[in-house]
Parts: sequence; C-alpha cells; structure tokens
Amino acid sequence: MLTIWCNMQFSGRAQELLNEGTRGHRLVFPETRTRSSLAAAGKDEVLAAADIAFGQPDAELVMQTPGIRWVHLTSAGYTRYDTPEFRAAAKGRGLPLTNSSSVYAEPCAEHVFAFMVAHARRLDIARDVQLGDRSWPTAPIREKSRLLTGQSAVILGFGAIARRLVELLAPFSMRISVLRRSASGSEGVPVITPGELPHVLAEADHVFNILPDNAGTRGFMTAALFDAMKPGAVFYNIGRGTTIDQGALLARLQSGRVAAAWLDVTDPEPLPPEHALWKAPNCFITPHTAGGHDTEFERLALHFLGNFERFVAGRELNDRVM
Amino acid sequence: MLTIWCNMQFSGRAQELLNEGTRGHRLVFPETRTRSSLAAAGKDEVLAAADIAFGQPDAELVMQTPGIRWVHLTSAGYTRYDTPEFRAAAKGRGLPLTNSSSVYAEPCAEHVFAFMVAHARRLDIARDVQLGDRSWPTAPIREKSRLLTGQSAVILGFGAIARRLVELLAPFSMRISVLRRSASGSEGVPVITPGELPHVLAEADHVFNILPDNAGTRGFMTAALFDAMKPGAVFYNIGRGTTIDQGALLARLQSGRVAAAWLDVTDPEPLPPEHALWKAPNCFITPHTAGGHDTEFERLALHFLGNFERFVAGRELNDRVM
Repeated sequence: MLTIWCNMQFSGRAQELLNEGTRGHRLVFPETRTRSSLAAAGKDEVLAAADIAFGQPDAELVMQTPGIRWVHLTSAGYTRYDTPEFRAAAKGRGLPLTNSSSVYAEPCAEHVFAFMVAHARRLDIARDVQLGDRSWPTAPIREKSRLLTGQSAVILGFGAIARRLVELLAPFSMRISVLRRSASGSEGVPVITPGELPHVLAEADHVFNILPDNAGTRGFMTAALFDAMKPGAVFYNIGRGTTIDQGALLARLQSGRVAAAWLDVTDPEPLPPEHALWKAPNCFITPHTAGGHDTEFERLALHFLGNFERFVAGRELNDRVM
Repeated sequence: MLTIWCNMQFSGRAQELLNEGTRGHRLVFPETRTRSSLAAAGKDEVLAAADIAFGQPDAELVMQTPGIRWVHLTSAGYTRYDTPEFRAAAKGRGLPLTNSSSVYAEPCAEHVFAFMVAHARRLDIARDVQLGDRSWPTAPIREKSRLLTGQSAVILGFGAIARRLVELLAPFSMRISVLRRSASGSEGVPVITPGELPHVLAEADHVFNILPDNAGTRGFMTAALFDAMKPGAVFYNIGRGTTIDQGALLARLQSGRVAAAWLDVTDPEPLPPEHALWKAPNCFITPHTAGGHDTEFERLALHFLGNFERFVAGRELNDRVM
C-alpha cells in the first residue's frame, strides 16, 4: 500500500477517477488544497509520510523527506524544482520528477495558435467595435487583415507544445525554424542557434516564445532581439513572463516598433490593473489561461493514474523531466 | 484590341499590375468606382462599348449588351447574376461568368477558422476583461476553454472555402461532414443530405455555414435546425446573412439554447447599431471582413490578368461559374 499526497483540490469526475485508480492505496491531503495546477503547497506535515507526491509539493520539504520516491507535478512548468540543489538531491536518491506536459501541450499549442489566427483576422478590432459604437468598418479591418499562408515563424523553445504547434501550422505552408538548446534531429523543422536568431527574427512574421523560466532563459528576449524583429511582425508569449525584457517590449509597442504582442504570461502575475502593458497599443493579454480546458482536471487525474500504474509495475514513467 | 470595363477603384501596385497586364488593350471606367469588391455598378453607358466587364457590372445591362463577351467578378459571391434570366441570357450567347473565388477562398477559410479557435480559447472574455476592470480571472476562463482535438464539425455548403477549411482542420482530427447539393466524390469527407442534417447537427460541436445566397438557400438554417444543434455547440456564418432565420438564432442565443454564434454576415448589412444581435449573449460579429487581406487588390488584379491571358488565348477560364 502506497501513500499518495495530493495538494490539488479535485472534484466531481476527476476525484472519482482518482479514488478508483488508487483503490487499495492511501490518498492523503494537506490542510490547504488548491484549484490551480501551479500553486505551491506549503510546508505541510502530511507530506512527510508520503511515498508519492502529486501536485506542487514544497521543493525544500521533498529534499528533506527521503521517503518520497516519486514526484508528479500537476503542471508542465517545473521552475521551482529546476535548481542545482534539487537536481542533485533527486539524482542522489534516484527520485524521478515527472510533469503533466502531456496534459498541457495540446491546449497551450491551441492557445498560442489562436493568438496568431485571431490577430491575422483582427478579431480584436471587431470586438472593440461591437463593445463600442457598432459601426461597420469593413474596409479598415479588411486592409489590416493578413493572409497566413506562406508567412514565416520562429519558435523559441522546443518541447511538446512547440512540436504540436508545428503540426497545427502545417496547413499554412509556413517557413518555420525553432530555437532549441540542443537539436535532436527529430524536430522536423530547422533548428537554429542563439547566434543565428537575430537574422532569423529579421525574416519572421511570427515570433512564438514558449521558453520556460530557468536560470538560462530569464530575460532571454532582450531589447536588442526585439529590435531585430521584422517590422510588422507579431510577438506571442505563452512561456513565462520572466523570459523577456518586458520593459523593452512595452517601449517597442508604444513606439510601434513591435507591431503587436499577445501575452498569456506576464511578470508579475496577476498583472496589476494599473500596469502600462494593459494599455499598450496592440498588446493583448490573456490571464494565464493557455493550459486550461474544461476537461483539465480529469485529464490531470488520468495522466497521473497512467504513471501510477507504471510506477507500481516498475516501468518507465511518462513525461519524466528528472 | 479589347475594351475592358472595370468599376473597381484599384490603386498603387494593383493598378500598376492591371495597366501592365492589359497593355495594348483599352481600360475604361464608369464615372463612379468603388473600393468594395461587392458593390454593384450603376447603369453606366461606358459598359456598352466593352468586350470584357471586370467588377460588378449591372446584370440587366450585361443582358442588354451583346458586345460583352466575358464577365469577371471581383467577388466570390454572384447572387445578383444567379437568376434564371441571367443564366438563360448567358447560356444563349455563350457568355462566360467567372468569379474571384481563388482570391477569397484562403482568407475566408482562415477567418471562420479563426472564429473557431478564438472561441475555443475564449479570447473574447480576456479582451473584455482587458477593456474592463483588468482583473485576472484565470480559473473561470480556463474552465470555459475547450480542446478542439477530437471534436466534430459540419460544414454547410461545399466549395473552395470549405475545401480549404477542411485542410486547416486536419491537424485537429475532427469528425467532419459536409452538406452539398450533389456529391462529386472528391470531397475527401463524408457528404450528407439535408434529410440527414438534423441527426448530424445533434452531434456536431461546430456548425460552419458557408452557404451563398440564392433561391435555394434563403432561410436554410431554420428554427428547427437551430433546435437540432447539440447543446454547447457553436454556430459560425461566413456565407450570407439571408441563409439563416436570424430571428430564430437571436432567440436561441438569448435563451442559451445556442451556446454561441460568430457572424461575419448579417441581414441587413451594415447591421444597424440598435439591432438586438449586437447585444445577444455570446454573439460575436465581424463586419463582413472575412475575405479581406492586405494584398486583396493585388491578388484580384493578378487573378483577373491570369484569366485575361487565357481569354485572349482562347483557353478555358479559371473559376468559371456559368
């Protein structure tokens, strides 16, 4: 019998699935649970007795609790575990860390893809008109609309989301390149180096940032890289707000140097209502909704249970990041 | 030397292309020209001397002017020529009618596709928040978002736009069926009959209306068909506003029976600012912008010129509808 700690507040069908799938084992919960797949758990004592941590356990506490034999995150991001200390501790005791990348790749890819097609058709202008004077500005919107077919794109960060995004873009016959720390050869699209990026940015109509937050990515999109972008190109961010020089982007939206930005992530989050980004021209913000979907909780539970079966059987785990 | 009448107000690069491509022939213009590819020309006398009419010539006048040997429309729609009288006259004197379907298939398909993905990610709610209190309603928007992959769709009307839409939908592995007057066998997706439609509507997450306006399509989407739709399904219209029972749709949006509608076409157009559709819950309107794009005029000119070359050489014309 295994003890499974979980700080996520499941309910309804997702909770039923979890109960059924862990029958014969013990589910334990900290006092405070959350509906957010990203919120960190506190330093709770219940974790000390667990074999498995499912959710967002306190990283420090995991390191201090040798009984924990597997950590499965409810998120795709794993910034709070991506430290030299945690990596060393995990390696030292053979502790696998898995994430929910399989759950979020599809909705995240669909989200940033929606940014692109909605902008190309300038649905934002039509929405503003509908909420405004309800005029019928056919010609001005038509002239601002763009044909996506044959355009070009660069994707910063190449994991499960980017892989899916490349599939969604396929019917548009775009020239696509991706920036990846180390090319595997299986990307299916050209992989570029950071040194080649300015040249590639100068040609790209769409710049998709999917970089996670870690020591190597913080502030990656610098003022100089924004300045290297093709005039008229659009910047999208569903990675993390910290991976860009947000002030530099803001200034370039205000000057028109960057034509438009669609951001699902900002620094900080929530973005304060008085923050200048909200009012920057052609800046469109969704409040970190990229991974969400109506079946998110069921899919999180099922993804964990798939891995739980593998763990019990001693098989290799899916979405293992450490 | 041929005389080419054109009531469209081209400019810049598009006008240059047209001048170059018709060198050695004569371009003539009516007194009033238009920037809209759909606006009908009046009964102007210049048309009487033309061999070729490029634009939206008055249908009556074309029938009365036997010298006109070819009509090339600047639109994909051709409602005002789709009458028994015009068809008979055209057939009688072997007058070909071609349209600009090749120019508009791509932007129209991209537009209705943008409706679908923008709605699935509820970009509308985020936009309203950004224009409103700038709160950060992550959870409510995430719960309203939908995964597109594996959903189902039905397309009403199957021409060049629908064909392209099916290609854009391919990465989502949707179950797609199309309604078409007569199946050719080359659709690549199952073709259904009007009799089968209620059953198909009951299963479809997305209903795309691309029907043109003609005697057989007016009021096609009846109250009963809206009532046959799956609860939660979304209705899209980039065909013509007259092909649906708009009052029935309005009532069903107000009651919530139809979850959402995205309309690029209405009846009438412009839709008056006081019309109830503007304020109906989950009703999103773009002012007939589906076909527009920044290179629209150049592409219209090039498409005409491609056909002009064919006409001069006595070859078969592209996009011939009569």
